Amino acid sequence: MIDITLLGTAALFPIPNRALTAAVLFCGGHSILFDCGEGTQTAARKAGVSLMKTDIIALTHYHGDHIFGLPGLLQTMNSMERAETLYITGPEGLQEALEPILKLTGWTAYEIKFLEIPPQGIRLCELISGWEYEAKFLTFKTEHRVSSQGYCFKLGRAGKFMPEKARALNIPVQMWSVLQKGQSVQVDDETILPEQVLGEPRKGLKFIFTGDTAPCDSLIDAAKDADLMICEATYGENEQAQTAIEYGHMNFAQAAETAKSANVAQLWLAHYSQMIENPQQYLPNATAIFENTICGQDGMSTTLKF
Amino acid sequence: MIDITLLGTAALFPIPNRALTAAVLFCGGHSILFDCGEGTQTAARKAGVSLMKTDIIALTHYHGDHIFGLPGLLQTMNSMERAETLYITGPEGLQEALEPILKLTGWTAYEIKFLEIPPQGIRLCELISGWEYEAKFLTFKTEHRVSSQGYCFKLGRAGKFMPEKARALNIPVQMWSVLQKGQSVQVDDETILPEQVLGEPRKGLKFIFTGDTAPCDSLIDAAKDADLMICEATYGENEQAQTAIEYGHMNFAQAAETAKSANVAQLWLAHYSQMIENPQQYLPNATAIFENTICGQDGMSTTLKF
Repeated sequence: MIDITLLGTAALFPIPNRALTAAVLFCGGHSILFDCGEGTQTAARKAGVSLMKTDIIALTHYHGDHIFGLPGLLQTMNSMERAETLYITGPEGLQEALEPILKLTGWTAYEIKFLEIPPQGIRLCELISGWEYEAKFLTFKTEHRVSSQGYCFKLGRAGKFMPEKARALNIPVQMWSVLQKGQSVQVDDETILPEQVLGEPRKGLKFIFTGDTAPCDSLIDAAKDADLMICEATYGENEQAQTAIEYGHMNFAQAAETAKSANVAQLWLAHYSQMIENPQQYLPNATAIFENTICGQDGMSTTLKF
Repeated sequence: MIDITLLGTAALFPIPNRALTAAVLFCGGHSILFDCGEGTQTAARKAGVSLMKTDIIALTHYHGDHIFGLPGLLQTMNSMERAETLYITGPEGLQEALEPILKLTGWTAYEIKFLEIPPQGIRLCELISGWEYEAKFLTFKTEHRVSSQGYCFKLGRAGKFMPEKARALNIPVQMWSVLQKGQSVQVDDETILPEQVLGEPRKGLKFIFTGDTAPCDSLIDAAKDADLMICEATYGENEQAQTAIEYGHMNFAQAAETAKSANVAQLWLAHYSQMIENPQQYLPNATAIFENTICGQDGMSTTLKF
């Protein structure tokens, strides 16, 4: 199960009732924040979700509207007596981009670590202590005017548990749930692997956060069959397609085309230009191409289930 | 005439419907912003006032909740194609404190200048081109845990214009308004000073913004007979007086005592601790000492008139 809350949908600068584009994902008591513009911490409170225990802050790029909320959030975490290590990840240039941010933030009682995500992604249970689920976190290249990347969160789903096999191996019932979670157990000096009692792995869940980007193949590849994609859609009009590409953005139709090509289940639009007063007005430009498109709104939440 | 809008009333971090403490003053088409925490630009939009033409940003100190809104605001001013020079002033350490802020902000088409205000204050007409009114801007020492200062804005009021004297000096009627504004005119190679046609200067207007401070004599001196003082009041309970002083803050009663000692006309409280859910609950602690106390609320405005 994955809970997603869209914290904001604005581009460039925050306006009343439209915070800068950011989202937070919760899974098994852990969480990842995607981007952190000015006001993201307030947007989270407004949406009724807490960022205080966020494990990873994943930045898509280093433009101000995606990072200026960091010093405030990092200080608030400190004043809330956070103790857990916080990982911050982002595209090339992370250390340099964060240097003035961390200078402003000042000393924190908790540790802040830069996280580099390799091309094959990371298993979160190997990074974050207490992360029980089989979840993978990956990045993909996007096409913005600066160094940028999008994120893919994949929650694995183990095969069906087969009690008859567990009984045949004399595994005590109390250990069944451990195996079901994909972990090994010891029975009379013998290591039992989850594969021994589970069927074929089943389709898991997949979430995509694009950040700012022009349409690109790497996004389509990464988003293949995703359950939900939060995609930038800076411009509303179909006629703005070329402008969008020039500025490293998309219009509603381009976001919908991306969703269609990637065969995602659901598309949420975000990162609206200030020129867009009412995103719903342009929604038909997207739904004409990809029906299951929703205009993202600040505070909107969903639960992705197996 | 001075228009004041209180943009926020929170301390430490912003919460929904309570932005960080900041205020903006408008006078004759010019304006001064006092402090700029995360979300101040959004609070201004919510309050229906524009910060885009702000002449001076006056920082009371460099704690995050008073300055983290700067990179966003400075970038927004740039994207709104501001051209006018922006002055930023603050207590000792301004340049060092702003270095990471300006690094984050990046290049701006308009110029940003650090402003040092001498002990005798500055006449704004000498600093800002097009500032017509006789206004003085002064700082005073406050008692916080770091280098800090409060601000005093004084709008002068010229003496009464005496038409009989102007007529006696053969001053053309079209020049009368210039003299009334306190500027000299030339009549037949002779310089006529405003004093020659004006009566004794009359009581002007005075506004005080304290920033974070424990009760102190320098604040009482500076606030003498002010028309409005926006004063920090971090704690509500009378029993928190000692804690307040230790942390370089005030409780409601201490703010009221300051207002009473300074004989101000009106006191607005701000900078409430997150522990204060409803400031009105503690208002009697202030009004028992100084009746004309109002619990500041985000977006509250007033016009000070002669």
